[in-house]
Amino acid sequence: MSHGIPAALSRFFAFPEAGVSREPESWPRGFLAAGVAAGIKASGGKDVMVLANRGPRFEAAGVYTSNRFAAAPVQWSRQALSDGQARLIVANSGGANACTGPEGFADTHATAEHAAAEAGVSAADVAVASTGLIGERLPLERLLAGVDGALGAAREDSVLEAAEAIMTTDSVPKRAEVPLPGGARIVGIAKGAGMLAPALATMLVFITTDAELSGGELDAALVRACAVSFDHADADGCMSTNDTVLLASSGAAGPVDTHAFTEALTALCQDLAYQLIDDAEGARHTAAVTVAGAASLADARETARAICRSNLVKTAIFGEDPNWGRILSAAGTSSAAFAPERVSVSINGVEVCRGGGLGEDRSLVDLSAREVEIVVDLNEGEASATILTSDLTHDYVHENSAYSS
Amino acid sequence: MSHGIPAALSRFFAFPEAGVSREPESWPRGFLAAGVAAGIKASGGKDVMVLANRGPRFEAAGVYTSNRFAAAPVQWSRQALSDGQARLIVANSGGANACTGPEGFADTHATAEHAAAEAGVSAADVAVASTGLIGERLPLERLLAGVDGALGAAREDSVLEAAEAIMTTDSVPKRAEVPLPGGARIVGIAKGAGMLAPALATMLVFITTDAELSGGELDAALVRACAVSFDHADADGCMSTNDTVLLASSGAAGPVDTHAFTEALTALCQDLAYQLIDDAEGARHTAAVTVAGAASLADARETARAICRSNLVKTAIFGEDPNWGRILSAAGTSSAAFAPERVSVSINGVEVCRGGGLGEDRSLVDLSAREVEIVVDLNEGEASATILTSDLTHDYVHENSAYSS
Repeated sequence: MSHGIPAALSRFFAFPEAGVSREPESWPRGFLAAGVAAGIKASGGKDVMVLANRGPRFEAAGVYTSNRFAAAPVQWSRQALSDGQARLIVANSGGANACTGPEGFADTHATAEHAAAEAGVSAADVAVASTGLIGERLPLERLLAGVDGALGAAREDSVLEAAEAIMTTDSVPKRAEVPLPGGARIVGIAKGAGMLAPALATMLVFITTDAELSGGELDAALVRACAVSFDHADADGCMSTNDTVLLASSGAAGPVDTHAFTEALTALCQDLAYQLIDDAEGARHTAAVTVAGAASLADARETARAICRSNLVKTAIFGEDPNWGRILSAAGTSSAAFAPERVSVSINGVEVCRGGGLGEDRSLVDLSAREVEIVVDLNEGEASATILTSDLTHDYVHENSAYSS
Repeated sequence: MSHGIPAALSRFFAFPEAGVSREPESWPRGFLAAGVAAGIKASGGKDVMVLANRGPRFEAAGVYTSNRFAAAPVQWSRQALSDGQARLIVANSGGANACTGPEGFADTHATAEHAAAEAGVSAADVAVASTGLIGERLPLERLLAGVDGALGAAREDSVLEAAEAIMTTDSVPKRAEVPLPGGARIVGIAKGAGMLAPALATMLVFITTDAELSGGELDAALVRACAVSFDHADADGCMSTNDTVLLASSGAAGPVDTHAFTEALTALCQDLAYQLIDDAEGARHTAAVTVAGAASLADARETARAICRSNLVKTAIFGEDPNWGRILSAAGTSSAAFAPERVSVSINGVEVCRGGGLGEDRSLVDLSAREVEIVVDLNEGEASATILTSDLTHDYVHENSAYSS
């Protein structure tokens, strides 16, 4: 497979032979974008992105945070995309515009109106996304000037600079593409390194395609893809106020098979989710925690999430300590159907716990590689789920205690 | 108040003027104990404790972990105390005897039988508790030799050494006493510094009293006291397999008023819970997170727990950063009834968020003191709950990644 996912992890994700690659330069036909530095980020880096769909079609779908303190741009975009149409995405890093009250919502509204007027579209077709510190107003003048600059600079071969403009604590820009039968493509960019937990992770993800699909088809494909990608990624258990995944279609390449599209989109989203977790703040290990043999998918997910959210499991992975007792004690908080005396645990292929008790010698486990594979078999049924997580390191504590973000 | 709880925290806990003190030397009348070094801990420190009730009465009550991988000693003690009677408690540090299968349960059984024979009581009146690494068998010979030594050394003025013998990663032994009207006393010891989360915290707590109460009265008092003390303490969100709180009564001081007893016991448990959180692994701050104005107690608890379990909140406290956006984003994951635009947040008395948006300038907040007070007002009803937690520090990561525990 070309997408670079280690075999040990990719088999859990059941990637199709989709040929995901990570260095797209140009957008699918119909899309133009730019990323510029507008002075919002203290670092002086790129912080405003525009992504325009020139059609001929303008179908769009979105998935958003379920946090009840959803940020102003989330509230705006949810409404703007409710008709299944969008022509322009405006995003900024350097400020989340969350918990900013009616004034913050007015800022988002003004941003959409301004961008719409410049681009000659309706504000109702402009999605807005923001990321950065919660609880601070955005510097609106700088943002609007950045939007002007980005609209003027928008072009086809700008995937990398658009990905750079949405980065916060990310150490690398994240992008991926996957080809579709018949010459169409899907290209996506993502950001997110902390406050990264399901439903969704703290992330902004913008995905474009020139495949022609109806709004309903796009929406269904996106919901399905998110459920087994971003929703199965959990860096630190913390849910953001700003999570946004947008999928826009220009239709410029004509119709495609819906099933093939959904498969390809899922592969792309899984790859981006892997990139997000692999770049999680301070992470030294990326772990795939699979709960197998569950009576239901919900049981498998609940148990895997409990393990992924245990700070003791996460620090043990950092310490390269195959401390399976911490895995079981986390699993033991779940309400899933299982009998403790039938549960087994394997770490990197060594079955250290068998029948709820001692298995192979834990000293046989080698945790020195970056990728870690934990499999908990409940021996209760046929369902399984895999959640990706990262370890809890000194660098995580440093990044999140030394800076407001 | 004599119990040393800062006023800012104690008012949330509504301590009675109970006069809890932290350095009891002797047990209530009827109790003898000892702590000895039996070579179970690698450090060579004390690791076996016996606590004997010489009567005239032998009522006892217990509260245990709800983890489904309950350790062998928890399974044993739950059964042994099901008749409301116990005459001897045997505890060891240096090994949890959890996830050790039928062999581990046989080890606990053998420990109880051995201690019972030595002490001249029935094994059904012996409670057993263990703490330490999960998934390893105990060195049974050393443990039994330690039990013999401790039974031979048991005496009245041994509260400190008993507290020392149950320590694992604790930096200080934990003990407390509270007087009762009429001359009776309650004296308790506790251990726990990590894997410390409600229902219960990872803790062993042994409480003795010479007050005379029925088994049912003891049980009701203990359940009530735990619900507003250990169950409101959350260091790292991780639930142990070995949590045990035992309360034993010798009746040697005669009857007491049940209500007064429950109040005093609650104060004692709250003080011990404070000591546990204050000594949580690597902690630099102890924070009381109060959710007020909730529609129900369950809503208040759920929201406070969500905040206490957010690694981003906990690292912000470590960094002394009044990052209220992280508090709201954690609160926003709860299912409690509230309207985001009516929620306010105060940190150490400064209302940094008002009506779901910006309040006082966050730079006014001083987080340099060890104790931190966070109040989230949902403005929805009259219920409130306070959860105690600690910050997430480099030392927590170090302690939990560098050692198996």
